[in-house]
Amino acid sequence: MVRVGIDIGGTGIKVGIIDAHHSIIGEGTIPTLTDIPFEAQVQNMAKCVEDTAAKAGVEPYQIEMVGVGIPGIANSAGEVIKCTNMGWFHVPFRSVFRRFLDVPVRIDNDANVAALAESVAGVSKGTSSSVFITIGTGIGSGIIINGKIWNGFHGIGGELGHVILCLNGVPCTCGNRGCLERYCSATALIRMGREAVAAHPESMILSMAGGDPAKIEARTVIDSARQNDPVAVQVYGEYIDYLAQAIASVVNLLDPEVVVIGGGVSKAGDFLMEPLLREYPKYVIFNDQPIPEIKLAVLGSRAGVIGAAML
Amino acid sequence: MVRVGIDIGGTGIKVGIIDAHHSIIGEGTIPTLTDIPFEAQVQNMAKCVEDTAAKAGVEPYQIEMVGVGIPGIANSAGEVIKCTNMGWFHVPFRSVFRRFLDVPVRIDNDANVAALAESVAGVSKGTSSSVFITIGTGIGSGIIINGKIWNGFHGIGGELGHVILCLNGVPCTCGNRGCLERYCSATALIRMGREAVAAHPESMILSMAGGDPAKIEARTVIDSARQNDPVAVQVYGEYIDYLAQAIASVVNLLDPEVVVIGGGVSKAGDFLMEPLLREYPKYVIFNDQPIPEIKLAVLGSRAGVIGAAML
Repeated sequence: MVRVGIDIGGTGIKVGIIDAHHSIIGEGTIPTLTDIPFEAQVQNMAKCVEDTAAKAGVEPYQIEMVGVGIPGIANSAGEVIKCTNMGWFHVPFRSVFRRFLDVPVRIDNDANVAALAESVAGVSKGTSSSVFITIGTGIGSGIIINGKIWNGFHGIGGELGHVILCLNGVPCTCGNRGCLERYCSATALIRMGREAVAAHPESMILSMAGGDPAKIEARTVIDSARQNDPVAVQVYGEYIDYLAQAIASVVNLLDPEVVVIGGGVSKAGDFLMEPLLREYPKYVIFNDQPIPEIKLAVLGSRAGVIGAAML
Repeated sequence: MVRVGIDIGGTGIKVGIIDAHHSIIGEGTIPTLTDIPFEAQVQNMAKCVEDTAAKAGVEPYQIEMVGVGIPGIANSAGEVIKCTNMGWFHVPFRSVFRRFLDVPVRIDNDANVAALAESVAGVSKGTSSSVFITIGTGIGSGIIINGKIWNGFHGIGGELGHVILCLNGVPCTCGNRGCLERYCSATALIRMGREAVAAHPESMILSMAGGDPAKIEARTVIDSARQNDPVAVQVYGEYIDYLAQAIASVVNLLDPEVVVIGGGVSKAGDFLMEPLLREYPKYVIFNDQPIPEIKLAVLGSRAGVIGAAML
């Protein structure tokens, strides 16, 4: 028997056939099409599962379940409540999918799925509680308690990115102000870099971006800081301080066994972790006690299909 | 069989004998003495338990367990890690207590204990998940998940009061800046009231305090707002807005079945709840879905002994 994970992304939908050792023994991809009817979208996914399984030498009856990670929220009845990217609002994903491939189907948010993947087969393997934070364009998060995803009683939890970190702060795409992802995402680091070069055009940040502030990326700021550009060092230090306060806040409230960091910004590796591990305990209220470790995610883009298959 | 709850407060230590219906069938109190040795403190408590039980017609062998709620943190081995008020740091409470009264002993933080009490015998009875927030001099909180207290892997969680709500904000007694309790506690409301009357000495807030800003209490601001004093209405509105953002942040991250509000400020009743219930959904990211109810705690000062006995 195998399990199948489907990872629905903005440009592509990945399918992974996962064996009992959490290894990917088959992979397939189809483009993310949003201009076709819902049934056709689901049919394409079911077909990709069958094709990918067949290529891996797996018959449909050998598929124990199909798990789906979505950039949105779903309920335990297998309905997608909201998945804006796909144009899905209250759609009966499970029942439609089973018309094409009749296997058990479970659906969850993609950050929850990645959290589960890391806790089952990744860096937090063997722990019973963890908080996974993915730092990219926004901030995604997944909470694992007693080995299971905790996404709340109504299924609307795990949204660390929209916890308020700064009253009356930077306006967020969600309509509120001061959301955590406005200070801790790659987008935040880009904004801070652009603001800094407006005041300090002599910064390496601007020259590395070819003189065009619009071309500043998170890595532009990080690479400039690595090279000791004073403005970049200042900006990056401030960003780390925000992230340290955000993680300490999670710890003060939830105190998981481990905090796992993934997403684009985590590619900075030690250059992220070294200052973060130094700064974060300052904001933990009981920091004279053992406190959670912070670790880098290890599964990368595989987390989506592996975690979905573990749902 | 009965259970016994001990509630360690700043001025008094309460003992409650609790029956199988979560009713208090006997009560006792001793003063909180901090200038006597630890063993003597514990012996006094054990004696108060025996005396209170005897008065309620309960023999020691009928005591199933003793639970203790402390303003601090403890571990599952029955050691108090830190209870600053009592001067306890890494003390073997359980083993010392059992020298005087040999029954099972469990210890937890007082806000966790109150959260458990409300979820077992109070307003959140019958729910599987809840977050209890007590709004007094500081902010205490307790998280219930799957019917059990979640105080973290290292036992340092549930400290909502020290989640950062405002980067670089008001300095906190803990040494950090912008902690949630600096904006949402009774102390915060007092600070905001004092700041307001400095700019607006004509406010009813000041006259209700006899013209002395030092005499402004949380209820002074609340009562002035009730009477439509414009300055107080403004201050209280801002306070409600902060509290709404704090609660929505908890919901965005944890999404419990219900949020329970207790503590001194909760005595404002509907005057607190009405605006809070109106404002808080604005800050919930998936507010087009069912979201947690907010309810007032009902057990009041009984929560301490009842919850401790449920540990």
